[in-house]
Amino acid sequence: MVDSIVEKIVNGDVRTAAKLIGDIDNRVPGTREILKALYKHTGNAYIIGITGAPGAGKSTLVDEMVRDLRLQGKTVGVLAVDPTSPLSGGAILGDRVRMQRHSLDEGVFIRSLATRGQFGGLTQSTRSVIDVFDAMGKDYIIVETVGVGQDEIDIAKSAHTTVIVVVPGMGDHIQAIKAGIFEVGDIFVINKSDRSDANKTLHDFKAMIDITRKRSTNGGWEPPILMAEAVNNKGIVELLIEIEKHRKTRKALSPESIIHNKKAIAQLELIDMMKIRLVEEVLNHITNSLEFKECLDCIVDGTKDPYSACDELLSAKLPDGLQQS
Amino acid sequence: MVDSIVEKIVNGDVRTAAKLIGDIDNRVPGTREILKALYKHTGNAYIIGITGAPGAGKSTLVDEMVRDLRLQGKTVGVLAVDPTSPLSGGAILGDRVRMQRHSLDEGVFIRSLATRGQFGGLTQSTRSVIDVFDAMGKDYIIVETVGVGQDEIDIAKSAHTTVIVVVPGMGDHIQAIKAGIFEVGDIFVINKSDRSDANKTLHDFKAMIDITRKRSTNGGWEPPILMAEAVNNKGIVELLIEIEKHRKTRKALSPESIIHNKKAIAQLELIDMMKIRLVEEVLNHITNSLEFKECLDCIVDGTKDPYSACDELLSAKLPDGLQQS
Repeated sequence: MVDSIVEKIVNGDVRTAAKLIGDIDNRVPGTREILKALYKHTGNAYIIGITGAPGAGKSTLVDEMVRDLRLQGKTVGVLAVDPTSPLSGGAILGDRVRMQRHSLDEGVFIRSLATRGQFGGLTQSTRSVIDVFDAMGKDYIIVETVGVGQDEIDIAKSAHTTVIVVVPGMGDHIQAIKAGIFEVGDIFVINKSDRSDANKTLHDFKAMIDITRKRSTNGGWEPPILMAEAVNNKGIVELLIEIEKHRKTRKALSPESIIHNKKAIAQLELIDMMKIRLVEEVLNHITNSLEFKECLDCIVDGTKDPYSACDELLSAKLPDGLQQS
Repeated sequence: MVDSIVEKIVNGDVRTAAKLIGDIDNRVPGTREILKALYKHTGNAYIIGITGAPGAGKSTLVDEMVRDLRLQGKTVGVLAVDPTSPLSGGAILGDRVRMQRHSLDEGVFIRSLATRGQFGGLTQSTRSVIDVFDAMGKDYIIVETVGVGQDEIDIAKSAHTTVIVVVPGMGDHIQAIKAGIFEVGDIFVINKSDRSDANKTLHDFKAMIDITRKRSTNGGWEPPILMAEAVNNKGIVELLIEIEKHRKTRKALSPESIIHNKKAIAQLELIDMMKIRLVEEVLNHITNSLEFKECLDCIVDGTKDPYSACDELLSAKLPDGLQQS
């Protein structure tokens, strides 16, 4: 069963892959066994993260990148991660509109993820879907995230090249500082650069990159700032050239640096995976218990404080020696 | 020891409260015992959440609100939650600038939180600091959060009245939909409303509120949309009036609705508290183990997949019967 699913996905079967991605998004039990078996077929794709504030034009940029990569004969997987819409549980325009353009092209596979589980775990689902795309043999995987929260930063850290997209104006300077994005951005794109304040934004960004950029483990890579107008297909070729340059810089790192970087990513991903499993399994167990409901009643009527309730509920479930802090 | 700390805080001792808040931010062991004892002194403050994108002018708005509340003779606690800045580990302008204006006023207490623990937990720290302000006897607690991630939405759910601040332009319409903010916003403020596209933003917001607003448990409250220019002190009085109206609507709910809402918040907060303790205690234990380091090496050299590594590391720590999913 697991073997035949894995074989189909490795052979690029879209239907099987789509089913598995849906199961990952919906936390269907048993998907982990498939992911375990699939893992040895991963590690070949180049993963590009695209992130930035809502309205920055990321989707258009990604569409243009896909078109250019297809012209180069590369296969592409696009994963749009958008957990923030209350209306549809995902991007409003969503897959359907975006699929249309590439719907007859077998070399492009577009999917979106929207489900943040009751206890989180979106970052984990994203990594699993990347594994699926990777096992399918896609040359490039583009992961598009909306916003600049911790999830987006964590997802960016798993990408090989992270592109930050901004638009001129709206206090970008301060906006960017607060967003912590300078730490994770390998390439910056000022989209909608026909706007009058684009040069000011460029100037601000240059200054900020000089201040904040960590250069220790990136082979001296200086994040370029590109101007683009995605809707007019301007700046896309330049972006793909910079991505290729960044890829080469990464490849040219010393073996020690490469292993150091790999280990840092593996650590981040493994901790994240344990975290969500721990929380989902133990908390599901507790929140379905009678004791949990009794504790809630006591908190509401003021006979118990939440800190003590938490102690009591956890002490029954946590292994010995883990409750003293 | 715990008793004397609690007594000092209940008597409004700023130094003791500041020390405790620092300990909460830094996850100092033992603070939970103080919070347990402090809890029975909470429940009197009115909690106002202010959130919105970076650069929307929230800090200025909050400063003006504080001034007006002080003129009414109310005491105020302000908590600025800003975990996203890599530069300072907090808001760049930060407490220091903001404190100056109110530094001689004993009725105002301003603090900021910036530390997202290795495994998260900022939402939890925020609630604990609110408890401290509350026990100090502040009439109003204003919690200012930056951005629209899940943390901010969870914090907003704990507030009595949540104010969403936006600025005209920059695709607010789409921006807001994606941010999921319509679900948590009780009052919307279009700040910098002297900008030319303010009316368009107003129009867009009205339409979106009509579509998305859940009216079931809020006593029929229709979220108003206010125009403001915080830098010119325009719209602040109107905002405080709407907050007072919302407070009255909440008070006028049926006893069943009030209990229902209280229970929903207690549940959210208790789950969040268990989650962070579970993760911090169990994961700290695992990540300090030799097995964890060995697993990382195996993942990096390709001899183990992360899904299996996760299974192995957790199976030793999870109580029986919780590992089957």
